[in-house]
Amino acid sequence: MTKVQTLEKMAKRLRIHSLRMTTRAGSGHPTTCLSMADVAACLFFQEMKFNRADPNDPLNDEFVLSKGHAAPILWAAYAEAGIIPQESLLDLRKLASNLEGHPTPRMPWVKAATGSLGQGLAVGVGLAYAQRLSRSPARTYVLMGDGECAEGAVWEAANAATLLKLTNLCAVVDINRLGQSDFTMHRHDVAAYARKFKAFGWTAIPVDGHKVDALLRAFELARRSSRPAVILAKTIKGKGVSFIEDRNGWHGKPLKEDELKSALAELGDMPAVDGRRLVKPRSGKRPAAPVKRFDFVRTDYKDKTATRWAYGQALLSLGRINQAVVVIDGDVKNSTYAEKFFEAFPERSFQSYIAEQNMVGMGIGLAAKGYIPFLATFAAFLTRAHDQVRMAGYSFSNLKLCGSHVGVSIGEDGPSQMGLEDLALFRPIPGCLVFYPSDANAAEACVEAMASHKGLAYIRTTRPATPLLYEKGEAFPIGGSKVLRASADDRAVVVAAGITVFEALKAQEELKKAGVNVRVVDAYSVQPLDAVGLRHHTAECGGRVVVVEDHFPAGGLGEAVAGALAGISRIVHLCVRELPRSGKPDELLDAYGINARHIRQAVEGLLPK
Amino acid sequence: MTKVQTLEKMAKRLRIHSLRMTTRAGSGHPTTCLSMADVAACLFFQEMKFNRADPNDPLNDEFVLSKGHAAPILWAAYAEAGIIPQESLLDLRKLASNLEGHPTPRMPWVKAATGSLGQGLAVGVGLAYAQRLSRSPARTYVLMGDGECAEGAVWEAANAATLLKLTNLCAVVDINRLGQSDFTMHRHDVAAYARKFKAFGWTAIPVDGHKVDALLRAFELARRSSRPAVILAKTIKGKGVSFIEDRNGWHGKPLKEDELKSALAELGDMPAVDGRRLVKPRSGKRPAAPVKRFDFVRTDYKDKTATRWAYGQALLSLGRINQAVVVIDGDVKNSTYAEKFFEAFPERSFQSYIAEQNMVGMGIGLAAKGYIPFLATFAAFLTRAHDQVRMAGYSFSNLKLCGSHVGVSIGEDGPSQMGLEDLALFRPIPGCLVFYPSDANAAEACVEAMASHKGLAYIRTTRPATPLLYEKGEAFPIGGSKVLRASADDRAVVVAAGITVFEALKAQEELKKAGVNVRVVDAYSVQPLDAVGLRHHTAECGGRVVVVEDHFPAGGLGEAVAGALAGISRIVHLCVRELPRSGKPDELLDAYGINARHIRQAVEGLLPK
Repeated sequence: MTKVQTLEKMAKRLRIHSLRMTTRAGSGHPTTCLSMADVAACLFFQEMKFNRADPNDPLNDEFVLSKGHAAPILWAAYAEAGIIPQESLLDLRKLASNLEGHPTPRMPWVKAATGSLGQGLAVGVGLAYAQRLSRSPARTYVLMGDGECAEGAVWEAANAATLLKLTNLCAVVDINRLGQSDFTMHRHDVAAYARKFKAFGWTAIPVDGHKVDALLRAFELARRSSRPAVILAKTIKGKGVSFIEDRNGWHGKPLKEDELKSALAELGDMPAVDGRRLVKPRSGKRPAAPVKRFDFVRTDYKDKTATRWAYGQALLSLGRINQAVVVIDGDVKNSTYAEKFFEAFPERSFQSYIAEQNMVGMGIGLAAKGYIPFLATFAAFLTRAHDQVRMAGYSFSNLKLCGSHVGVSIGEDGPSQMGLEDLALFRPIPGCLVFYPSDANAAEACVEAMASHKGLAYIRTTRPATPLLYEKGEAFPIGGSKVLRASADDRAVVVAAGITVFEALKAQEELKKAGVNVRVVDAYSVQPLDAVGLRHHTAECGGRVVVVEDHFPAGGLGEAVAGALAGISRIVHLCVRELPRSGKPDELLDAYGINARHIRQAVEGLLPK
Repeated sequence: MTKVQTLEKMAKRLRIHSLRMTTRAGSGHPTTCLSMADVAACLFFQEMKFNRADPNDPLNDEFVLSKGHAAPILWAAYAEAGIIPQESLLDLRKLASNLEGHPTPRMPWVKAATGSLGQGLAVGVGLAYAQRLSRSPARTYVLMGDGECAEGAVWEAANAATLLKLTNLCAVVDINRLGQSDFTMHRHDVAAYARKFKAFGWTAIPVDGHKVDALLRAFELARRSSRPAVILAKTIKGKGVSFIEDRNGWHGKPLKEDELKSALAELGDMPAVDGRRLVKPRSGKRPAAPVKRFDFVRTDYKDKTATRWAYGQALLSLGRINQAVVVIDGDVKNSTYAEKFFEAFPERSFQSYIAEQNMVGMGIGLAAKGYIPFLATFAAFLTRAHDQVRMAGYSFSNLKLCGSHVGVSIGEDGPSQMGLEDLALFRPIPGCLVFYPSDANAAEACVEAMASHKGLAYIRTTRPATPLLYEKGEAFPIGGSKVLRASADDRAVVVAAGITVFEALKAQEELKKAGVNVRVVDAYSVQPLDAVGLRHHTAECGGRVVVVEDHFPAGGLGEAVAGALAGISRIVHLCVRELPRSGKPDELLDAYGINARHIRQAVEGLLPK
């Protein structure tokens, strides 16, 4: 049997599995599996090299199924490769099974959750960049749908691959010309895709996506390309089953039992091929793992310092002892102070330009290979990558994000530049830590905590310089809080974080002069929140709480505290309740009701008359 | 004086204004104003036609400053055109002034807030499409920065313009080769931009961006193009002032007083030109305003119906009486049921394919021209357009969004397809309404309320069919709630919305059988929340509240209720507290703790032992 014949048989096996699995599950996307079956057979059983026993072998070629709805054929390929039992395929989409409707890293071979289209290429850029950083000879393959090429995120990633000259990256577009609701934008106009990819600096290789020999040649060409390469595979959705081939209306629809019978009759018997013997083992010298230490030397701060400056400084110090730290910028490194790291470690720094989606997508790929990516931009602009951040959470990714320039305290640039909804973006993401330090020493401690924590973490930094409140080396545990002012007769708690901590301290002084003692708590760990501590303080302070934050009302510190203290406290929530204007920071803190004056009034309003 | 000489003088006036304004304000981006001064002079004082007296004249050519940080020169152009007083320019960035650091529609000539880069082109597509829909002969101009061309959103919009054959759209890229922190990706490689735009179906016109005669010819070519046209203007950042020309490190930096003096000495005296006389008046027949009615005929529902189906049905009914309604889809119209509108009103429907950012950006443009755009996709995928949604809010846009397939109740497709953070996305946006109907009649009423409300509004719809709870024609006021079960001796309130309303009703029945009466409230208006009603019910029901929602813990209904009831109730918050898996809807509601069984247990836990 020739190689081509063997792979054709494997493709048929993958088709049969995909149809059976989805019919059994009663839902799923069989036709999109059928269009890519020949590509999948060539990739998993000829082109890619990997160690079947270890999904984390650094020499493995990596694979991203960007069109995540084709999950059944991915599971089928793993089963054929002997990675998961063939019987498990019939558990597709069951609650107890890791064979989910769209891939997540609950299956350890899956390096990033997919299913939100257009994200896989950026993840692939991150994986391929990680392979290069670790001097691995391995390659990365990304299988995309044609429909998802309408997503702008694809073109951000295409730029990044070109900038990084990732010749170890190969994308395949499964051009089956049918989307979910209609024909795709370019239908079978393969040349239209080629023009776009070429304009973005790629080698484009058109091919009949159902011809195994042509596909193998295309992969060969891609391997030899001096640019990132994309294989444009012209295919038929539903290929192999006449009554569903190339028809609209069959996107997310399994065959009924009787339809399955007809389909299987058409495809013929399951051919006898042992996929386990076909898998190509990885080769080369196993790269050394980078040294990872987190106990970096803290800076001696003497004067007022912006937390964003301390963030950059901490990255620099961390980078000196931790080879796994990688930094990506979105053309604001001189504002977030990521530039400190860029200057010291250019080989572990990447300028992603103004392309936040790519920055986060690449980060997911890097983190999946054991790197610790730190990404920063203005908090306002992380909203551009909300979907990627969400998918990073769903991927249990070890990604670290920094949003700088939060709140009205940035001043004159106006609302488009103010991060006023970032806490509401990050707090819902499962498992995501959220820090909001008030001074430089706190910021450095938070960076250390983020780095050593395994999982998604976010830090919010402030534009203006703020006074020092804490000693160098002070501990800021995850889920903790700091009591900055307390007395035995405190009559209210003021909960603040970041810039408003200083307003709370001013209010405390003024209130004290007026004979009213209040406790001031710095809730630097917004998530997890120190609910136990806050309940304790609330009980000690007459059940009166003022929360003050430089954020819109919903989803931030105020609601977090309200949730934690439900039933045991009266709460006044000071926050930005309308769209702010340009102005000076102090003017804005006053105009939008979050400065010392408003805090004092809020406390006074809570006290019994 | 020739036309060219006059425009050169105007460009110099704009340069002088921009420098003075930013030095006076003490912040801002003068160098990016200087690179585009010649383009701005040509645009505002020769190429564009508009009625200086009316920013909403439908015959006006429209302008979007996508590179919003160049706001000073936009304000300067308005002043030169006699639209705002020249003296007002020195109020740039003051709290009381509408001359903000980045443009917002507080200045009525600004049709969309900009400053989050890469968004202007999609807004321009929406404006140009609106002009065509209203049969206006007017054109739309979008001025972009070169750095923002790295944003994927630009390429989504480029596709849309080509699909719509918008020959009335002209983009200009100010290629000054310097970003904020560094050189841009393509520096002065104008051909690289040309290749990309051509591959996306545009006419690309390279030009020296400081030569007025060449610019006027380029605009002429653009007007004659049979495709959307982009003028690629090669420019120098800081042009006209030798010591800041083409230098890194001058991005967001005003000149100091002495530097300003040198710069003005170099530029020479303010030339004498009266811009008011140069503005070209708009021409043509004023198009008729579309008929806008909102009281559409409600559907007679008899059986279980999915709220997403009712959403589509309501759009169809609304479209019949309201000519301003326009619908955009992201290749899921057969799932959101927007397809009902597409079939009936193809001329007011647009397939944006899988490009959510473009969908929202276009919507902002359409809404700015008096249309009422309804956009729908899976709620999960609206996260892709969070930044655009945010900017829609900051634009006070009359945009209507629908997120379908929310929560674990979608079942087997898995977490990437479940909208579990959409409430946290929409609730913080200032002025945004958030509806979450439980049955088909409620869904239709919510669509009516959204359409007639002037402002941003969001509706969350459910995948599975749900039983009918309400009568046809029942009123669902903004900020209201519905009491579905109540008795004189209710011992707790269960607050639910959407799918969990039915679980609450089941729990109520079971509890009643066990001798415990509870009140069931349908909080269909998640924002504004019926805080007064909820406080009343809480007081009547012993201060015990269970909130149950198909959403992650942060930023949703639970925290909204906790905020509203702080101090007066004990609250148990049932919600999805971990990353869900694939499974059957009922299994998932149980596994993640939000079905009747869990509600009953929560109520029992709150009761005194």
